[in-house]
Amino acid sequence: MENPDIIFGKNSVMEALISGKREINKIIISKNIHTDSKINKIKELAQQKGIVFQFAAKEKFQAYNEYNHQGIIASISPVKYVDLEEFINTPRNHNASVVILDGVEDSHNLGAIIRTCVCAGVDGIIIPSRRNVQVNSVVEKTSAGAINHISIIKVNSPVSAVQTLKDNNWWIIATDASAKDNYYDVKYNDMNFGIIMGAEHSGVSKSLLKASDFVVKIPMQNNFNSLNVSNALSAIIFEALRQKLSNKP
Amino acid sequence: MENPDIIFGKNSVMEALISGKREINKIIISKNIHTDSKINKIKELAQQKGIVFQFAAKEKFQAYNEYNHQGIIASISPVKYVDLEEFINTPRNHNASVVILDGVEDSHNLGAIIRTCVCAGVDGIIIPSRRNVQVNSVVEKTSAGAINHISIIKVNSPVSAVQTLKDNNWWIIATDASAKDNYYDVKYNDMNFGIIMGAEHSGVSKSLLKASDFVVKIPMQNNFNSLNVSNALSAIIFEALRQKLSNKP
Repeated sequence: MENPDIIFGKNSVMEALISGKREINKIIISKNIHTDSKINKIKELAQQKGIVFQFAAKEKFQAYNEYNHQGIIASISPVKYVDLEEFINTPRNHNASVVILDGVEDSHNLGAIIRTCVCAGVDGIIIPSRRNVQVNSVVEKTSAGAINHISIIKVNSPVSAVQTLKDNNWWIIATDASAKDNYYDVKYNDMNFGIIMGAEHSGVSKSLLKASDFVVKIPMQNNFNSLNVSNALSAIIFEALRQKLSNKP
Repeated sequence: MENPDIIFGKNSVMEALISGKREINKIIISKNIHTDSKINKIKELAQQKGIVFQFAAKEKFQAYNEYNHQGIIASISPVKYVDLEEFINTPRNHNASVVILDGVEDSHNLGAIIRTCVCAGVDGIIIPSRRNVQVNSVVEKTSAGAINHISIIKVNSPVSAVQTLKDNNWWIIATDASAKDNYYDVKYNDMNFGIIMGAEHSGVSKSLLKASDFVVKIPMQNNFNSLNVSNALSAIIFEALRQKLSNKP
């Protein structure tokens, strides 16, 4: 039961209020909620921005109990997807990066990926419109509001998207368990780059591996080759950030 | 409804069979399951090891539907916790590392942490017996079998555990958003070290920060300071591995 126009929980509602990127139609607060500093801040921001908030009996929230709503939900305008050309042509004063997902199926993973990308300063996430989880309520909740701080680019063909990026002088890095080079052998500075992360089970598809400039692995220890996709991305993307901030390869 | 003696899903059952660290009492397979290469491999291994497997109607699995059991479960002996002194005194031909959790509440996070630690070659995880999630079925499932490849050390007091590690010449690194140094400023080579990861909301407790040799932060971008604890750990622990494998600071 996905509902893309409802967000759940104090952090998500707060982030939506602060970022202002999505139109908030209405905030609904449970009458039984324990008022704390976050709730007060939410009320204050909502009043400043002239956003309606309503109090409702806890029964109103039953339909959303699977979402850990903490007694607060908001109905908001859907995620605004960004066009790939528009994303590429956005003027920036830094080298840009994008994460390209290839068949990630789990909503919690997508939420964690979005959150990690925002923390690590990634500019955008490319999501294929088929065979990949889409932005839904679980994704929004797991992203803890991060969804409002990054460009989400929906594409029909990730292979075409990669080609477009390459045509615009972006470098493409794909991850594959059988790669020879390690992810930290790449010099991430001084280029715009995209990192392709594959499906939880099958990895990056052959056509995308072939289209990539670099194929790298994370060197797995203990003969245990089963890192969660968001944790794998975290290792790679923070290595790119380390190189950038420390200016060391 | 936690059941610490049942594991769920093909990967978890397969890993338990391969690692052999936990006694498997019985494997139960749904009659309605689609037999694939993994299921065949599980059957083969179970037969080799003389482990009983039973077929059951899918109704038998209803009680476990929340666990994504894929039509296969196994009842196994409980996780064997390792004593801290025993862990410290284990002979190793490498510098050792341990992750110390301080108030991690979410089962999925603990599962992802265990998985990340095994992939990155961490030797153990210290879990406080109070105010921290314990190893339960969700943790086992999320860890994808990794739980059988690492020492889990349960302690009453993480502060005492840290002191014991320090008394044995281990170095302790804690994470805190307000730290001056970045996590990649630490030289992880040539020492046994422990990394303290704090609770999802409140971070590492003051007493543990005070007991640490280094306090470091992950430099957050976009003014967005909300990285999931397993993704934060992934960035740090793979940086330690990078330094070790590349022999570069």
